[in-house]
Amino acid sequence: MGAAISRRSLLAGGAALPVAAAVPGRQAVADAVAGQAATGKVAAAAGTGDAVEPFHGPHQAGIATVPQAHAVFLGLDLLPGTGKEAVVRLMQLLTDDARRLTQGRPALADTEPELAVSPARLTVTFGFGPGLFAAAGVTSPVRALPAFETDRLQDRWSGGDLLVQLCADDPMTVAHALRMVVKDARAFAKVRWSQRGFRRAAGTQAPGTTQRNLMGQLDGTVNPSNLDRSVWLSDGPEGMRGGTTMVLRRIRMKLEQWDAADRSAREFTIGRRLDTGAPLTGRNEHDEPDLNRLNQLGFPVIAEFAHIRRARAADVGQRILRRPYNYDEPVGADGTADSGLIFVSYQADIDRQFVPVQRRLAEGDLLNEWITPIGSAVFAIPPGCAPEGWIGDRLLTA
Amino acid sequence: MGAAISRRSLLAGGAALPVAAAVPGRQAVADAVAGQAATGKVAAAAGTGDAVEPFHGPHQAGIATVPQAHAVFLGLDLLPGTGKEAVVRLMQLLTDDARRLTQGRPALADTEPELAVSPARLTVTFGFGPGLFAAAGVTSPVRALPAFETDRLQDRWSGGDLLVQLCADDPMTVAHALRMVVKDARAFAKVRWSQRGFRRAAGTQAPGTTQRNLMGQLDGTVNPSNLDRSVWLSDGPEGMRGGTTMVLRRIRMKLEQWDAADRSAREFTIGRRLDTGAPLTGRNEHDEPDLNRLNQLGFPVIAEFAHIRRARAADVGQRILRRPYNYDEPVGADGTADSGLIFVSYQADIDRQFVPVQRRLAEGDLLNEWITPIGSAVFAIPPGCAPEGWIGDRLLTA
Ligand code: HEM
Ligand code: HEM
Repeated sequence: MGAAISRRSLLAGGAALPVAAAVPGRQAVADAVAGQAATGKVAAAAGTGDAVEPFHGPHQAGIATVPQAHAVFLGLDLLPGTGKEAVVRLMQLLTDDARRLTQGRPALADTEPELAVSPARLTVTFGFGPGLFAAAGVTSPVRALPAFETDRLQDRWSGGDLLVQLCADDPMTVAHALRMVVKDARAFAKVRWSQRGFRRAAGTQAPGTTQRNLMGQLDGTVNPSNLDRSVWLSDGPEGMRGGTTMVLRRIRMKLEQWDAADRSAREFTIGRRLDTGAPLTGRNEHDEPDLNRLNQLGFPVIAEFAHIRRARAADVGQRILRRPYNYDEPVGADGTADSGLIFVSYQADIDRQFVPVQRRLAEGDLLNEWITPIGSAVFAIPPGCAPEGWIGDRLLTA
Repeated sequence: MGAAISRRSLLAGGAALPVAAAVPGRQAVADAVAGQAATGKVAAAAGTGDAVEPFHGPHQAGIATVPQAHAVFLGLDLLPGTGKEAVVRLMQLLTDDARRLTQGRPALADTEPELAVSPARLTVTFGFGPGLFAAAGVTSPVRALPAFETDRLQDRWSGGDLLVQLCADDPMTVAHALRMVVKDARAFAKVRWSQRGFRRAAGTQAPGTTQRNLMGQLDGTVNPSNLDRSVWLSDGPEGMRGGTTMVLRRIRMKLEQWDAADRSAREFTIGRRLDTGAPLTGRNEHDEPDLNRLNQLGFPVIAEFAHIRRARAADVGQRILRRPYNYDEPVGADGTADSGLIFVSYQADIDRQFVPVQRRLAEGDLLNEWITPIGSAVFAIPPGCAPEGWIGDRLLTA
């Protein structure tokens, strides 16, 4: 089904609708706004607002993309009785929204087309949970994670049939895209959860530097450099090639207790310095940690249960790609923060890459004293699609 | 009490503390980080992160300040039995935090000093509710608003003894400053509500252009140009001169219904065009609306109950300064948005400037079909303070 397909025929499955006459009017407006946006760019501020991430390609955007400042992760559950045909239609619809919105054009029948003109590097990334594959009658390439000792998972932050990850450097852009997606999904799915995250605003950090999380740590230092090796799928089912998998964990931070620990205890916990992010055995952030170095007392400088020792993949080629966001929801009456990390990782193989790391951490990680996983979900991330395609096309119509 | 005062003596009211030895260590770290931040600026990205708003001056910052992208409004209630002396100590403490954090320096005993180094135009603005004045035994210059027909106020979004408004172009900066304020207020007050708002990211809009709200309208076109006339107090109690008053209304938007209305109905409702923001009688956003112009049928082009006609102040010198933020909380399971406007206005005199406008709107405004006020609070905003002073000093120690 091509890009020129209309919203109505997608919604109606191709049947003619009596409201047909009303639609061209709206569409004309949307097109006018889009045109205005294109020619009006001279007047707009350069940079942040106008920047565009490509939508089409071998991989979906929003994974290798330099992380944008704002994100919403939306977990949807298909309505009971939603079968393959409906899933296909839903993905055609949402792909069309994503294709337009990411390029700064209003969605079809966009109700606030003026809010669509500032893409601010918007990416819309789709992931399929086990439930979506079951509904579509296709074998799922992902399954729920095993239970971990430290899990305190809440249903309201876990699972989901369909993931939509929206990221942009502008919170308004995210809000508008979210609204269009939720409206267009409504006939097929209901919202299970939505999680809002942030990083430093665009323009506040030098390019290529690492963000800090709410514990104050530089978070994201060690990430794979070769995504072809550890992230993108090159074998397995044809419809997943160029895709990957995603693990999303909502991890609450006990910031009150963390703040009670002194700086050296905090640095000992991670195995890195708070100021520079350097390993305790090095001077600079990107120095290779020396896991064998001992201090004068004969103990390892980077502790046996330091987070970076426990999290380290033996095989560098098997590293997971972490792309986390901070969350900070309204404080409770007693002033307790509801803050933490929306931990997001992408990897070719969850069982071989993510699970061993998470298992080691659950078994022993000094950081566990201050963090609690309260949500968990896994998704297959289909590859990108061609201009005439839609996300999941080769997977769902094989 | 001077700026050089230490956190401990503020907390303890000047008494010596046994933990004294532990504090210099932390402070040394904070100072080192501050120093590092200052010298490290070369490495940081220019612009957004480093930009600083002055803290001291005749007026508090955060009012005439060009609105930053992110805001949290924090409503605190004093703990029972909190009297004048404690209020004074609280304001000394919080002023000291604001003075430092807004200039990109960690707060005293900042637990995450590394998060303080990017002020991103942070402003921290304090407001006193009627309850604070009562607790301090000082006559309140503000009182709760009268009830309006259209109000559907919820206690959880209304009232509050002390307001802290935190605005910055970086969400991380806001999160960190919020946390320091909440921690330092904890011995004196509990959180009544916190409301998070946003506007377009810094750098996405040309300077001087108007933001859009979640209804897609240009919001903020008509605002007073002379704040000395309509916002800053020049008479009344000495301790309020240079100050102002604030009205905060949480207004939920019924976006589903709004989207069902067609564009001309929406433009008719406000009296302005959605695309350009021009009045229906003009071509450009800042054209003066012609309230007397009739259409061919003899009806006013800007309707009798259009929002801008009803909201207009007869006396231009009595206009309120609107500085609203959008809010967009997680969507419900049925996809219903929890979105709206954190309407914030500053004016010299609530009774003479705000109340008549709100009364006219409550009595008849086409927009009422799509909006519901669910929260309301009023605060006296003391003037700014001198480097050796604290916010509210002349008001509370007169
Ligand atoms: C709130 C929870 C967490 C926090 C605050 C946190 C923080 C950190 C920090 C500060 C580092 C060192 C800097 C860096 O390389 O980015 C790090 C490294 C790492 N973390 Fe975490 N982390 C958390 C949860 C997790 C989880 C759940 C996993 C995976 C199951 C994980 C896997 C890793 C890996 C693989 C590394 C790199 C280790 C290396 O090879 O050096 N982290 N984390
Ligand atoms: C969700 C609620 C509201 C929305 C969406 C909204 C929207 C708008 C819009 C689009 C304009 C025209 C552009 C502009 O001048 O900014 C406007 C103007 C105005 N609004 Fe509102 N408004 C809301 C609530 C209020 C409230 C509660 C008040 C005060 C009680 C208010 C007072 C005004 C004033 C004074 C003007 C300027 C009128 C003039 O002199 O032209 N608005 N509003």
